[in-house]
Amino acid sequence: MKKSIHFQPDNVKIEVDEGENLLTAAAKAGIYINAFCGGDGVCGKCKVKIEAGEVVTEKAMTLRSADQEAGYRLACKSKVVSDLVVRIPEIKGADGKAISRKPKTTRAISARSLDALIGDWKVEPPVEKRFLKLDPPTMDDNVPDLHRLLRAIKKGCYECAEPTYDHPQLLQDLPFILREANWEVTVILLRGKRAEEPDRIIAVEPGNTTGRLYGLALDIGTTTVCGVIVDLNNGKVLAEASAYNEQINHGEDVISRIIYSQRPGGLKTLQERVVRTINQVIETVCRNMVISPSDISYIMAAGNTIMSHLLLALDPKYIRESPYVPTCNQFPLTRAAALGVYAHPSVRLFLYPSVASYVGGDITSGVHACRMHQSPELTLFIDIGTNGEIVIGNQEWMVCAACSAGPAFEGGGIRHGMRASAGAIENFHIHPETLEPMIVTIEQVKPRGICGSGLISIVSELLEAKVIDQQGKFDRNRLHARIRDGVDGYEYVLVWAKDAMAGEDIVISEVDLDNLIRAKGAMYAGYQTLLESVGMTFGDLDRVILAGNFGAYIDLERAICIGLLPDIDREKFYYLGNGSMLGCQISLTDNDRFRERTMVSSLMTNMELSENSEFMSHYMAALFLPHTDMSLFPTVQAKLKEG
Amino acid sequence: MKKSIHFQPDNVKIEVDEGENLLTAAAKAGIYINAFCGGDGVCGKCKVKIEAGEVVTEKAMTLRSADQEAGYRLACKSKVVSDLVVRIPEIKGADGKAISRKPKTTRAISARSLDALIGDWKVEPPVEKRFLKLDPPTMDDNVPDLHRLLRAIKKGCYECAEPTYDHPQLLQDLPFILREANWEVTVILLRGKRAEEPDRIIAVEPGNTTGRLYGLALDIGTTTVCGVIVDLNNGKVLAEASAYNEQINHGEDVISRIIYSQRPGGLKTLQERVVRTINQVIETVCRNMVISPSDISYIMAAGNTIMSHLLLALDPKYIRESPYVPTCNQFPLTRAAALGVYAHPSVRLFLYPSVASYVGGDITSGVHACRMHQSPELTLFIDIGTNGEIVIGNQEWMVCAACSAGPAFEGGGIRHGMRASAGAIENFHIHPETLEPMIVTIEQVKPRGICGSGLISIVSELLEAKVIDQQGKFDRNRLHARIRDGVDGYEYVLVWAKDAMAGEDIVISEVDLDNLIRAKGAMYAGYQTLLESVGMTFGDLDRVILAGNFGAYIDLERAICIGLLPDIDREKFYYLGNGSMLGCQISLTDNDRFRERTMVSSLMTNMELSENSEFMSHYMAALFLPHTDMSLFPTVQAKLKEG
Repeated sequence: MKKSIHFQPDNVKIEVDEGENLLTAAAKAGIYINAFCGGDGVCGKCKVKIEAGEVVTEKAMTLRSADQEAGYRLACKSKVVSDLVVRIPEIKGADGKAISRKPKTTRAISARSLDALIGDWKVEPPVEKRFLKLDPPTMDDNVPDLHRLLRAIKKGCYECAEPTYDHPQLLQDLPFILREANWEVTVILLRGKRAEEPDRIIAVEPGNTTGRLYGLALDIGTTTVCGVIVDLNNGKVLAEASAYNEQINHGEDVISRIIYSQRPGGLKTLQERVVRTINQVIETVCRNMVISPSDISYIMAAGNTIMSHLLLALDPKYIRESPYVPTCNQFPLTRAAALGVYAHPSVRLFLYPSVASYVGGDITSGVHACRMHQSPELTLFIDIGTNGEIVIGNQEWMVCAACSAGPAFEGGGIRHGMRASAGAIENFHIHPETLEPMIVTIEQVKPRGICGSGLISIVSELLEAKVIDQQGKFDRNRLHARIRDGVDGYEYVLVWAKDAMAGEDIVISEVDLDNLIRAKGAMYAGYQTLLESVGMTFGDLDRVILAGNFGAYIDLERAICIGLLPDIDREKFYYLGNGSMLGCQISLTDNDRFRERTMVSSLMTNMELSENSEFMSHYMAALFLPHTDMSLFPTVQAKLKEG
Repeated sequence: MKKSIHFQPDNVKIEVDEGENLLTAAAKAGIYINAFCGGDGVCGKCKVKIEAGEVVTEKAMTLRSADQEAGYRLACKSKVVSDLVVRIPEIKGADGKAISRKPKTTRAISARSLDALIGDWKVEPPVEKRFLKLDPPTMDDNVPDLHRLLRAIKKGCYECAEPTYDHPQLLQDLPFILREANWEVTVILLRGKRAEEPDRIIAVEPGNTTGRLYGLALDIGTTTVCGVIVDLNNGKVLAEASAYNEQINHGEDVISRIIYSQRPGGLKTLQERVVRTINQVIETVCRNMVISPSDISYIMAAGNTIMSHLLLALDPKYIRESPYVPTCNQFPLTRAAALGVYAHPSVRLFLYPSVASYVGGDITSGVHACRMHQSPELTLFIDIGTNGEIVIGNQEWMVCAACSAGPAFEGGGIRHGMRASAGAIENFHIHPETLEPMIVTIEQVKPRGICGSGLISIVSELLEAKVIDQQGKFDRNRLHARIRDGVDGYEYVLVWAKDAMAGEDIVISEVDLDNLIRAKGAMYAGYQTLLESVGMTFGDLDRVILAGNFGAYIDLERAICIGLLPDIDREKFYYLGNGSMLGCQISLTDNDRFRERTMVSSLMTNMELSENSEFMSHYMAALFLPHTDMSLFPTVQAKLKEG
């Protein structure tokens, strides 16, 4: 149920889900509320007056009963349960007068959901179960067990090719399964790659098990492995789970994993670690569902090229060395159990094909999910991360590239950077006059550090408030308790030690700002280089699709403000979410889509940016907030002037 | 070089190979020479006079120098080196008079060799090596290593399908092989099953190794495993080796192997034993050839259905129980190394498909080798052993059956029976008047026992000499030192203890004769039942093909005499030898033949004889020497009357 909130004095109306945290809602709406402790309820600053409607408030020690009786609540401890009118108290200056604050002209906004464009897909999975009643053998009909089974599968289908099978275990068990089941069995068939190709027998089970047909979609990320169980009889998602990729102990990013893989036994260790993580995910989803891992009939996975190599124990050595050559892009037919994955010995693990060393199966899967390859609209597909991947194109052509943005968006290279988990500052506002912050953390606990979306908020707010200039340097003339010359040069104190989890100040420094500018500059230069390579400009784009978990949390207006996304019509932006997982789910469920996955990867032409001179000059020009060429960012230019 | 021998007083002329042993040659020609010690040179009975030409004689202590000067030699110690005239001395009776001996009207003869009918086959093996020089990768051309390889394989062939590969090891090694070999490699390709199917990459080797392309043909027998290395660049056999199937410690015949397989761990043990034997054969052939087992690019094997099941660890349990159902007839694509065979991990081991539980891939292979399925001539194909297999048909249809003949032909169930090895009596003649024997053993050493071919000789000679009657019973009125009432009833002493290896009398008893009659009766009833099932008689047969090692040693005339083979024109009989091995060699070398192997097995319709009432009545009628219906054996009838 949606509820409306009317914030005063800003006169901003928004809609939120029932149960939403009031501080988080305000932050998303671009409403500044004084808040230092991230939402932990201890600073007591985020007092707001509920003028109409009701909130459910956790008991908070920091609010006086007089305030409570007067209708005040701590925003960070309040859940929205009805339509509300909320008034933000005035802030009084040192002179006791209220400090005025102009409402923002453009509020933080979200991209549109891509759901409508993705549309539905068929429930006609590549695997199928068929219940068969075989005639028991007699002296007049004593054909081999396998022959009897194949005959029953083909019955009534005179033109279809003879099914094949290939796992020795299947044959070894067949005579016993047939007899114990009194010749009534269920076969699991994997449909042929092309229509004319024979089906393949994956397994034979006693009795009628056609009601139980499950598939597993796996997104094998450098950081996290996610799994989703799909009921292939109706296409419904039954359970999902995720776990940190255990390889992380041997390197945070793909490059350090490749380096580790070159140590003696390193490749084997990394392979075992990711398999262990996958098994942990399988155990969790199966436990949630009360099914056995052996009930999973087929696994559709996607990962970047390095993750795919490591899973298959393919040495990624030459991916790291120029000219960046992977062993393969289309991964071999693999039995999950052969890799060590908890699965029936016949079950296949399919991996989405890669395009190049740094444009992997996760991108292919995402592009496949959003049908970019079937749309006439010129689309820019972006997955932001340590390695940002970019695809531009439509149904006629697609070009793609990876740009090494560095780890800033994942909290790397930022002094107080961290991954998006509890305590990470994910939203930030600054009071334009007092320069005091509004800090919102994930799970509303005491702040521990800054995650990618927080970083974007902070930089864009500091820029808009003119605390920093367009080069990312602090205004040394602006005297304020929170602005100081620290160990890494000038910095702004986001959280004082007393309010922080670790008991030390959380700051953002000029070094951090430099890293962020380089990261966003690489992405932007990537878009430009790819567009130019096909003779187009940002004006030609019909859609911009933001993929990946990070993409889903991006505040569009702020990302444009710092120059991470192009300054074009906001209506053209869409959120895909975890496109890699979505593609796997679609391929798991719809055989026609499953069959086109290799074609999708082969439609994409990769461009190497690392030694590309066009890219380098675009990159140099992008090392500015938002850009040295302000004509590319008209709305930002207007906003900065206005401010 | 052939040499002629003219035997006197019999006036028989034969041709033999230079170097042939004179006693063996005489025995084959049906010439009786007194000889008790098997050819060991100790009894000194086989004195013959060389009237013209020369022999090379081993020094023999048993010949007086006067005899030597008079031109006498021991036949058993003489090698034929020129054309000869040889006179067999008269035998003097107790009265001092020479005992006359009429020459036989029909001498022991051999079937014709099938060589001409088998013909040549192409040297165009299913595997092929291709040397490729790849372009090293650059930034402008950094496709994956696999893609680069596939591109080079397809170069100049725009219509051919993309090759496939499937062994993970291949991909794991590929980047390193390519770079260490400086991008010059040899690929081993397995051609597609059908012309339009893609080739499959078996292995990639550094440098140009096209000159070294080897295949292994494997005949996996219940008793013996034989291997032959073929140079697939020219089709030549380079080396061969054989070893006793180590499974033999767990049962002599297939039924006892099945029984053993049902013990805990039994199946695993039998699988390991046959693999160990195969590895021993591979080691021997490779040592002889100074090649490495990993140089073998592909293995073509044939075995009976039980051997095939055990090799693949398929439980043969239901093969033994009515209605005798195997797990499969067409065996799965198998990688040799996965079974434990010493081979490159990608190398395939193909097994000739079976027809039924007791008509196995060895028979399919033999039928395939002699092109019975392509000939208009009505052919009876026979493989005699514990399980005798029979195929009747031509290019239009084939029916087949197995009959459980029992182990008599392999020395089983015969008191002094043994396998065909050194010391086994393999040839036997009896003097029609003195009833004294002529004993020839394998390798001409002291007799140890009787092998299958010896048994046939003994029974047919005793029958012709009327020592036994047509029921296989001794003539109790015929008094002779060698005929006596022993522990198993009446018996004939073949070798006295002093001349025998083990120092005890070697005899043939009525129990032995019963077993032999049952064995040959089952075979004959099998031919009759199959012929009748298709409305034919022996008179319709154009050819009889004798397959198997035992078949190659059968004395045609004697086998017909006892009723093991039909009494038809001797010119219609052919020796195939080890057809199972021959089929493997042909499939190894000629891709077109390789592709038709499954079709050959599917052309054969199996008939179950074990519960067939026609078979039972034919069998009962055949329990006679040669048969109760003497009109089926006109030449034997004439001979017996004449005697």
